[in-house]
Amino acid sequence: MTTPELQNKAINTLRFLSADAVQKANSGHPGLPMGAAAMAFTIWTRHLRHSPRNPKWMGRDRFILSGGHGSALLYSLLHLSGYDLSLEQLQNFRQWGSLTPGHPEYGLTPGVEVTTGPLGQGFANGVGMAIAAAHLAAVFNKPGHELIDPFIYAIVTDGDLMEGGAAEAASLAGHLSLGKLIYLYDDNNISIDGSTDLAFTEDRAKRFEAYGWHIQRVDDGNDVDAIDSAIKAAKADPRPSLILCKTVIGFGSPNRQGTQKAHGEPLGDDELNAAKENLGWEKEPRFLIPEDVLAFYRQAVDRGRELEADWKMRREAYSRLFPDLGAEFNRRVLMNKLPADWEASLPTFPADAKGMATRAASGKVINAIAAKLPELIGGSADLAPSNNTKIEGVPAFQKESPAGRNFHFGVREHAMGSILNGMAVFGGVIPYGATFLVFADYMRAAIRLAALSHYPAIFIFTHDSVGLGEDGPTHQPVEHLTSLRLIPNLVVIRPADANETAQAWKVAISRRDGPTALAFTRQNVPTLDVGHASGLSRGAYVLKDFGDPEIILMASGSEVSLALEAAQKLAEEGKGVRVVSFPSWELFEKQDEAYRESVLPKNIQKRLAVEAGSSLGWERYASSVIGIERFGASAPAKVIFEKLGFTVENVVAKAKAL
Amino acid sequence: MTTPELQNKAINTLRFLSADAVQKANSGHPGLPMGAAAMAFTIWTRHLRHSPRNPKWMGRDRFILSGGHGSALLYSLLHLSGYDLSLEQLQNFRQWGSLTPGHPEYGLTPGVEVTTGPLGQGFANGVGMAIAAAHLAAVFNKPGHELIDPFIYAIVTDGDLMEGGAAEAASLAGHLSLGKLIYLYDDNNISIDGSTDLAFTEDRAKRFEAYGWHIQRVDDGNDVDAIDSAIKAAKADPRPSLILCKTVIGFGSPNRQGTQKAHGEPLGDDELNAAKENLGWEKEPRFLIPEDVLAFYRQAVDRGRELEADWKMRREAYSRLFPDLGAEFNRRVLMNKLPADWEASLPTFPADAKGMATRAASGKVINAIAAKLPELIGGSADLAPSNNTKIEGVPAFQKESPAGRNFHFGVREHAMGSILNGMAVFGGVIPYGATFLVFADYMRAAIRLAALSHYPAIFIFTHDSVGLGEDGPTHQPVEHLTSLRLIPNLVVIRPADANETAQAWKVAISRRDGPTALAFTRQNVPTLDVGHASGLSRGAYVLKDFGDPEIILMASGSEVSLALEAAQKLAEEGKGVRVVSFPSWELFEKQDEAYRESVLPKNIQKRLAVEAGSSLGWERYASSVIGIERFGASAPAKVIFEKLGFTVENVVAKAKAL
Repeated sequence: MTTPELQNKAINTLRFLSADAVQKANSGHPGLPMGAAAMAFTIWTRHLRHSPRNPKWMGRDRFILSGGHGSALLYSLLHLSGYDLSLEQLQNFRQWGSLTPGHPEYGLTPGVEVTTGPLGQGFANGVGMAIAAAHLAAVFNKPGHELIDPFIYAIVTDGDLMEGGAAEAASLAGHLSLGKLIYLYDDNNISIDGSTDLAFTEDRAKRFEAYGWHIQRVDDGNDVDAIDSAIKAAKADPRPSLILCKTVIGFGSPNRQGTQKAHGEPLGDDELNAAKENLGWEKEPRFLIPEDVLAFYRQAVDRGRELEADWKMRREAYSRLFPDLGAEFNRRVLMNKLPADWEASLPTFPADAKGMATRAASGKVINAIAAKLPELIGGSADLAPSNNTKIEGVPAFQKESPAGRNFHFGVREHAMGSILNGMAVFGGVIPYGATFLVFADYMRAAIRLAALSHYPAIFIFTHDSVGLGEDGPTHQPVEHLTSLRLIPNLVVIRPADANETAQAWKVAISRRDGPTALAFTRQNVPTLDVGHASGLSRGAYVLKDFGDPEIILMASGSEVSLALEAAQKLAEEGKGVRVVSFPSWELFEKQDEAYRESVLPKNIQKRLAVEAGSSLGWERYASSVIGIERFGASAPAKVIFEKLGFTVENVVAKAKAL
Repeated sequence: MTTPELQNKAINTLRFLSADAVQKANSGHPGLPMGAAAMAFTIWTRHLRHSPRNPKWMGRDRFILSGGHGSALLYSLLHLSGYDLSLEQLQNFRQWGSLTPGHPEYGLTPGVEVTTGPLGQGFANGVGMAIAAAHLAAVFNKPGHELIDPFIYAIVTDGDLMEGGAAEAASLAGHLSLGKLIYLYDDNNISIDGSTDLAFTEDRAKRFEAYGWHIQRVDDGNDVDAIDSAIKAAKADPRPSLILCKTVIGFGSPNRQGTQKAHGEPLGDDELNAAKENLGWEKEPRFLIPEDVLAFYRQAVDRGRELEADWKMRREAYSRLFPDLGAEFNRRVLMNKLPADWEASLPTFPADAKGMATRAASGKVINAIAAKLPELIGGSADLAPSNNTKIEGVPAFQKESPAGRNFHFGVREHAMGSILNGMAVFGGVIPYGATFLVFADYMRAAIRLAALSHYPAIFIFTHDSVGLGEDGPTHQPVEHLTSLRLIPNLVVIRPADANETAQAWKVAISRRDGPTALAFTRQNVPTLDVGHASGLSRGAYVLKDFGDPEIILMASGSEVSLALEAAQKLAEEGKGVRVVSFPSWELFEKQDEAYRESVLPKNIQKRLAVEAGSSLGWERYASSVIGIERFGASAPAKVIFEKLGFTVENVVAKAKAL
């Protein structure tokens, strides 16, 4: 049982642990923790089902601090609730090697569900989690046996609500009626420039109503009972819920509360002391945690164990009643393990000079492996017929058909990226999402976060060069392959033909500790002999040697067959030429020195790279590059390739000039 | 005078010119032109004030086809109205070298106001135009002398309304009450995946009401009089207007209208003929333009001349009454010319070992030149105090103070980018917008379009490396400098100190044919001797030679002073070292061979580049690079730099190892 006094102390503990951490680091954001402490308290002590000693317990609810700058609040909650995050870590806030970085990082800190900080991302990640949960519930739950039934709680901020990516996600969440979403809006009227009156005067409640959300208001964001009632009502409503809580940024700080001065800098010792005095808190010691407060929060540990035990019992009962589903649940959701024989379903394609577009091959691969991999789900940002992402014979994921596996993200690339991240981190599904490669720019922030956070999302990018033709330079990627390769921990693969496409999917599906970007052509490319394609997993491999090589032609994607043709011509003229198919820099860099030397021997320095994109970076492997250093043009693909030098003649000439 | 028959013919001419162009190209989008023809007709023949023989006439209204995939409609309108766009060009739709590319490109085709195609961009560009217009009107217009008074018309689509960037722009437009915006929504219930019921069921009207827009509905998007009335009401309303027009995609095509099949592929000859029969149109010849229809549309030429003549008269009267303002209007708005002596206002900074952050220097530069350059206006995506973008002593741009020069874009990076583009292309202003460099990812699509379209927008990116410290990897750019350098026609400048910062601003302000990205530090850097800084305009220059150089150390931004220190150490050990400050690859590449050789002589091959970002690409200039190939970390800047090898010791060691 809690008393009003203990409750108040417990909330102030959150405020001042956070403010003390910021003060000690001399860096950080005290305003959100102090203003939103009561909201967090209400969620964490009255609603959140979690198990601090087993942060990954699958039956838990999820909590997202979308305003990741308030990280000290989250770390305080984690420490107090009994997660494996010591007080020392809080005291090392924002220091090298600590588990308490400036913004929460998934994978680093136990209990952090997603990486947040870049605004809007956490908001949209939650939508992805709710989608994954709804899907898994539809697949696995049975009446009376609800193994997957989480609420997704978030604290969202003015910044989140201003971000377009979050707006896209909110619209989709309303469309899908994701009733498990319960977002508390820290409505404090302050952003960094000052009052939200400066730039953000829209009627937020009405906007979210227009999206189809359930709206409630809490006039005093420190009123725990009011917040509690609103959360209860939100749980009962079938729509996603936004609870607008009027708060005071930096609550308690006598000279800064309610102003942007409270947002992003330490209060300073004097103001921190004044705030403590103001709220009846001991000034010293810093990082004070009253014993009764700690004991109160730490109840979460036992409560969590009980929740877990209960869930385990229910899961065992489920497995007895539904042994096949139980085994599948075990494999897919609990162990995140691929079926042993899934790779056997990967198709191969006979050699064929006419060939097919790699996007078409990708569509065939998806459909070939979909039956073996029920966890494979995904779709497109309203380009499904162009991206070839549809799984045939299964319904769309919709409000009425949450077991559906085909996703209609709408023309919402940014939200799609963030939603894929949320789906991937939830587990039990392998999500993919597609758009044209040029529109990777719209979702780049989400791709980066996937890489930083090791989310195993699969990003499909079709129409991967000027070879898309007539749509012109607004739709033709040029710099995009290289700009994706620049993102650390993102694996980018641009397969040369249908058989490499199957191998690219094999890599992407197998890669469970980070994101993969797949680049596919719009236009047909010849299908090469399948025997070679397994080399793709090593990033680059010798596709063919013509004689004793004195020249290496290396290429990726649609330019591989061009390089082959050119090599044939050069061979006819008596040159020794090696053709290297080079679908992935990142995979090649992971190979050992001996392998890399075997593909690109130091003694062959005449090396020409051919790729219909920026040449930057190919210098690492080649002595000369045929690339594109300009925007594309609107014309049939064949014409563009000719005009930009992607012809057999030009490759031959450039190779001879080496 | 027009009759209902002629009107109908005129609308069908738009439909079939467009469909014929798509058919001949065997590529393109007939659905939008056929469905939205009546909307376009109403705007263009009943409202749009323009002068086809002088597309750049400053007194004109603006028209944006935000759904740029319907380009054939725009080209048809331009040809029919008498712009310098021949029927031959329409017949060469989507062919190499034509003026009729797949999506409208600004600068290529007379009368195309902005490049569109990537969805949401045109929508947000219009908001930027309305902002520029409101500002210039506040600065120049006098009662009875409204020189700047344009309406900004747009046709926007489902895709535009789903995009988050457009949502951000719409919220800001409502906040600012940009009453000159009149957007007609082509509400056809279809997107590429199929019915909008699949993903887009929000209440659009209500959402825009929540933003503060004026909402009207037209139940039949072919009803010219109803559209006309709605536009009249929109003009009279002080809020931005959205007119939801119910249309039928591919209207007239008996087997495809109202379905996604009409959207993005040629109808085929049979269906095209069937559509013509259906609407009572001659099947042959293709590209039929009835004489009376042409004569009707071509009235725009004389009407435009009259409008122009009237405006010229009014402008001359204005100049007589307000000679100073008139001269300024002439310089700034009509000629887009910088004041002759503006460069004299650029500050210099004394050498100072403690120095200052280049973001702080940038703030000082902005304020030093602002008085001389009244056209310099801008702001930040809610990071003004961190981006140092505020012009002191002038108000914010708000509904009540449109003459204000400080912009609060809100946490809306993507919209900010697109709005800057719209402001820049409107003319009479030099707009800048700022955020942290890592959040360039949020606005990358807009930056790319600026580069493609040669919009002279200035993008300010502060906190330009891991040197921002404690905020951690979510906020620390690593790959961003290089990924921006990859965008063709974007000039990226990362100045080394306060004096280079002033020179960087000089380049950015002077560059009127394309965008510039400026990267500034959060942390202090020493201010070097001002004498060198003018070398910045050449992209790279010899900052200092220690003895007879055998080694070159090159660096940008905050790493230049590090390189200098290391060179000093090496010199003390008897090495000859050259330090090259290398703030901009693009500017350096524009220099002639002789200059480049003078800075980086071929006979000095021991070259080490130092930059706190991806090393990719520095291989072009250096034989070795100290860069960053991982995500950053949360810690004080000094610690991060040490851990990642940005120390004098490491630079010295790496230089010696060359």
